[in-house]
Amino acid sequence: MRAILHRPSEGYAESVRNEPVGILGGIGPMATVYFMQRIIAMTDASRDQDHVDMLVWNHASIPDRTAYLLGSSDENPGPVMAQDARELEQAGARFIAIPCNTARAFLDEVREGVDIEVLDIVGETVSAAQAAVPGLTTLGILATDGTLRSRIYHDTATQRGLTPVEPDDDVQKDVMAMIYDGVKAGMPVSRDRVDAAVAHLRAKGAQAIVLGCTELSVLRTDVGLDDADVVDSLDALAARTIELAGGRLR
Amino acid sequence: MRAILHRPSEGYAESVRNEPVGILGGIGPMATVYFMQRIIAMTDASRDQDHVDMLVWNHASIPDRTAYLLGSSDENPGPVMAQDARELEQAGARFIAIPCNTARAFLDEVREGVDIEVLDIVGETVSAAQAAVPGLTTLGILATDGTLRSRIYHDTATQRGLTPVEPDDDVQKDVMAMIYDGVKAGMPVSRDRVDAAVAHLRAKGAQAIVLGCTELSVLRTDVGLDDADVVDSLDALAARTIELAGGRLR
Repeated sequence: MRAILHRPSEGYAESVRNEPVGILGGIGPMATVYFMQRIIAMTDASRDQDHVDMLVWNHASIPDRTAYLLGSSDENPGPVMAQDARELEQAGARFIAIPCNTARAFLDEVREGVDIEVLDIVGETVSAAQAAVPGLTTLGILATDGTLRSRIYHDTATQRGLTPVEPDDDVQKDVMAMIYDGVKAGMPVSRDRVDAAVAHLRAKGAQAIVLGCTELSVLRTDVGLDDADVVDSLDALAARTIELAGGRLR
Repeated sequence: MRAILHRPSEGYAESVRNEPVGILGGIGPMATVYFMQRIIAMTDASRDQDHVDMLVWNHASIPDRTAYLLGSSDENPGPVMAQDARELEQAGARFIAIPCNTARAFLDEVREGVDIEVLDIVGETVSAAQAAVPGLTTLGILATDGTLRSRIYHDTATQRGLTPVEPDDDVQKDVMAMIYDGVKAGMPVSRDRVDAAVAHLRAKGAQAIVLGCTELSVLRTDVGLDDADVVDSLDALAARTIELAGGRLR
């Protein structure tokens, strides 16, 4: 799809629109829908035409990322994602966002395949944490066991001179239960449990805490958590996407 | 984007997958997100890969449909929609769904531009009503003033030998208030008001009632309306989309 000549409303007179945005999604399909929802909700718009144009490849059949990363499957999702990115580029996408923390492991492979920018959900999230808490030195991480083991958040934090901290084993067990037995299973999770995990990381010295998992983003909305020191990875990516597209953040 | 060789799970052994589905969306952007959500929720899936692959052009900047149809703007959205459909086809879409009742007015123009099938939201909705109520003869219509005036539901009903009925003026005024002052304005609407409009059409002889407006689809979910004789246009389109894609309906 060709790049669209966007007709800006009056408020946009000075802004440069950089659309359509390419969204490499489907991993999982509902996370992509939630990400689109956040982009729309976070855009300051008084009419449809003020919203960001999006080309979305909601490619649910991409091979399982976690299974491949943990070695229980030899179907590599990397080349499929790289091909999807090329297709979004050919279709006119001006840059690409991938609404998935697990897929961050394949970022280099995706970037190699295209000439347009591919945003880094982890880098954007850590940047958002640094912006939210000036003078930040210690960053707490709430994520799946897999993401903690891959150290994507630890490494980015360390590169920025931050000290990463993760939950103790018993709290991490409850984080996994909130993700798998709660959100993924469609069961309610109490606000108290989320608050307890956040308080635990604060007690360990974290001045900001990232939610590095789509299910935790959904949970944050569900329980109405809006503490300024808790930074949501999908929201960080959505904010950067709107900004880079030339949309107006609410 | 090329057609994807879908890897079916065991339960799909006999089914033919017909993907990716092309979604010509953005009119409005949130209706498209809601439509994707319904496709995902209505698909019987035990893992990401059982879901339908979707190519989505969430093209928010398409000129205002209602303004053009009512003559208050001369920016014609028809050629833009036809071009979007061609782009979805070139990108590999196997057929196209347009999650918008107002846009139905441009269906012929969109269909002329492509060789693949473009679903008719109105036709699918009336078919769903006929399937829901065997022996249906009188069809009630809840929609905007504009959709009633365009007579897209009336005409399709008449072609199928059905008698269309619409609300009396005072009830129609409240339907418009539920859509504009309620859903579009983000204000709650009581279940009683929805029930009253439905009861009014039943009293006028309707054996089935179609919700021919995205905001009414959202409202139906919000108030938890699940009467078997009330047929939702977005759900009817979502069901047909899943079926035609080779997905499994829940």
